[in-house]
Amino acid sequence: MTEKNRTEIATLGEFGLIHHLTDNLPIGNVETKYGVGDDAAVLQFGDEQVLVTTDLLMEGVHFDLVYTPLKHLGYKAAMVNLSDIYAMNGTPRQITVSLAVSKRFCIEDLEELYEGLKLACKSHHVDIIGGDTTSSVTGLAISITCIGTAPKEDVVYRNGAHDTDLICVSGDLGAAYMGLQLLEREKTVFAGQKEANPDFAGKEYLLERQLKPEARRDVVEKLRSAGVRPTAMMDVSDGLSSELLHICSQSKTGCRVYEERIPIDYQTAVMAEELNMNVSTCALNGGEDYELLFTVALADYEKVSQMDGIRIIGYVTKPELGCALITRDGMSEIELKAQGWNPLKD
Amino acid sequence: MTEKNRTEIATLGEFGLIHHLTDNLPIGNVETKYGVGDDAAVLQFGDEQVLVTTDLLMEGVHFDLVYTPLKHLGYKAAMVNLSDIYAMNGTPRQITVSLAVSKRFCIEDLEELYEGLKLACKSHHVDIIGGDTTSSVTGLAISITCIGTAPKEDVVYRNGAHDTDLICVSGDLGAAYMGLQLLEREKTVFAGQKEANPDFAGKEYLLERQLKPEARRDVVEKLRSAGVRPTAMMDVSDGLSSELLHICSQSKTGCRVYEERIPIDYQTAVMAEELNMNVSTCALNGGEDYELLFTVALADYEKVSQMDGIRIIGYVTKPELGCALITRDGMSEIELKAQGWNPLKD
Repeated sequence: MTEKNRTEIATLGEFGLIHHLTDNLPIGNVETKYGVGDDAAVLQFGDEQVLVTTDLLMEGVHFDLVYTPLKHLGYKAAMVNLSDIYAMNGTPRQITVSLAVSKRFCIEDLEELYEGLKLACKSHHVDIIGGDTTSSVTGLAISITCIGTAPKEDVVYRNGAHDTDLICVSGDLGAAYMGLQLLEREKTVFAGQKEANPDFAGKEYLLERQLKPEARRDVVEKLRSAGVRPTAMMDVSDGLSSELLHICSQSKTGCRVYEERIPIDYQTAVMAEELNMNVSTCALNGGEDYELLFTVALADYEKVSQMDGIRIIGYVTKPELGCALITRDGMSEIELKAQGWNPLKD
Repeated sequence: MTEKNRTEIATLGEFGLIHHLTDNLPIGNVETKYGVGDDAAVLQFGDEQVLVTTDLLMEGVHFDLVYTPLKHLGYKAAMVNLSDIYAMNGTPRQITVSLAVSKRFCIEDLEELYEGLKLACKSHHVDIIGGDTTSSVTGLAISITCIGTAPKEDVVYRNGAHDTDLICVSGDLGAAYMGLQLLEREKTVFAGQKEANPDFAGKEYLLERQLKPEARRDVVEKLRSAGVRPTAMMDVSDGLSSELLHICSQSKTGCRVYEERIPIDYQTAVMAEELNMNVSTCALNGGEDYELLFTVALADYEKVSQMDGIRIIGYVTKPELGCALITRDGMSEIELKAQGWNPLKD
């Protein structure tokens, strides 16, 4: 046998690796409108644009069953895929669900998981159309593919932002990450004692954001009914910084974001203080918020500034200005870096 | 905590479990034409029927990297999904690929895997449109979703077989299973010695069938150009017996299959003899052949009986006659049982 080269995956990171493996993939079918590189791929069938997104969740990497009830896991696994379809300004229609389960799991466990999947699908009018159930040597793996639709002119990509566009975000950021920190802190209690009483009082919102995220159909609908079409959009799964950099690099722009404008819930701020963490850092890099980050034309300022639950956090600039955060005191600019959650790091 | 019931998954088996979890799933969207229960789900977008199938392959369950080169693994992982689309009489168009990899793997490994994926896709004019790459605590997981298309009137389900239809199968059966037996036998050689020389002479076909299966686009095209539309069809992934029982139960029919008509390659027969196994049992229960099993109206007898590489192996009966194999001597009937590969068994 000849020795072959060995380059560690960690040297590239998740996005680098995907880019490395999928760069320049040939597209041969006329109905393939957009392949790798956005929240979902875009296909054209008849007059309809069909959106396809997929996620693979692995036990021990994406979830910890010590503190994640299976029903919540099923709910979240579906929700994160629906969120990707909304992030394209589409409507999710169907999902397929593949499970790999070790002998540790029983039928009642899978029933619980399915309860969560069904609940998420029911509230978003999505059909479960198929899947695969098999065994695993260790742990649980969940792979979900979601199919959505959108009229052709409605699909919003990451690459449509322009200089002077406003940057908006729905809801608030950092709470899901704080929820994770809280659960990890109380994990020893869960694991150690049967009659444990983990201390969650006053932090229910953080837990809900981590364990039961909601895909923002309401935001997509609100924008549509107000006649606002985002120029670029994606969901916040890896952290605001990371997503902003995606939009700016794909749109070939820069951006300025005001630290003081980043929406943060009271419980998030309290928890960050308890943990001696900078709350803005948590909001910028936390991830798993599943809020929508989008840009709109400056002309839509009036409309979006009056929308409940939508915050204008900054603006798009020419690319040579780079991507930066304007600090709370307004005195300095800090270059934005993607320090979001990296599932491939050591 | 209340004690909850615990029913072991093995008590239901793969199909029982999927049925248990997905029975009576509500279908709410008008474009969802067919959900769980066939080789692929069927959606309707415009005039086009869109087929969706998905598979999750786990290391240690579906493949053994001791004797499976990563390029072959990628090729096979794509091929088994394309096969599901052909089994609906459709044309595969796109796949998404999700990978979960442990630190054992390096970038060069994933490049090899992708080489195989790309090769399979290239030869079937399929675009890789997206996916997900993440880490895994142990081993490799591969989840592929394939999207295909078919004109509405072309889609062939498992449930369309009728009394007196002819049962046909492409290629030959049992070779992939014999290839697996051969690889398992020689595995100790692979694992133990660096300069090992596993004994594969004269058995190359078996290895190819196991490590490099080919989805039968040619068969679908041949039938189409001859004007033969199968009444029911599926691919042979779990074994001929298991698939026949699926078609018969979903079509509400019985069947008779002639043992002497089951197509078996010479190398398969030799290997079965070496291993002291009944070759018909291997062909009936082996699995992973990825041949097409289909039924046609009796009126198509002339056409299919003259097709190269297609064998008529029996006929469909009324349901009360059950499903049986007519033995080689023509003297007795043996009830068909699904003893194919069960990925959920102990």
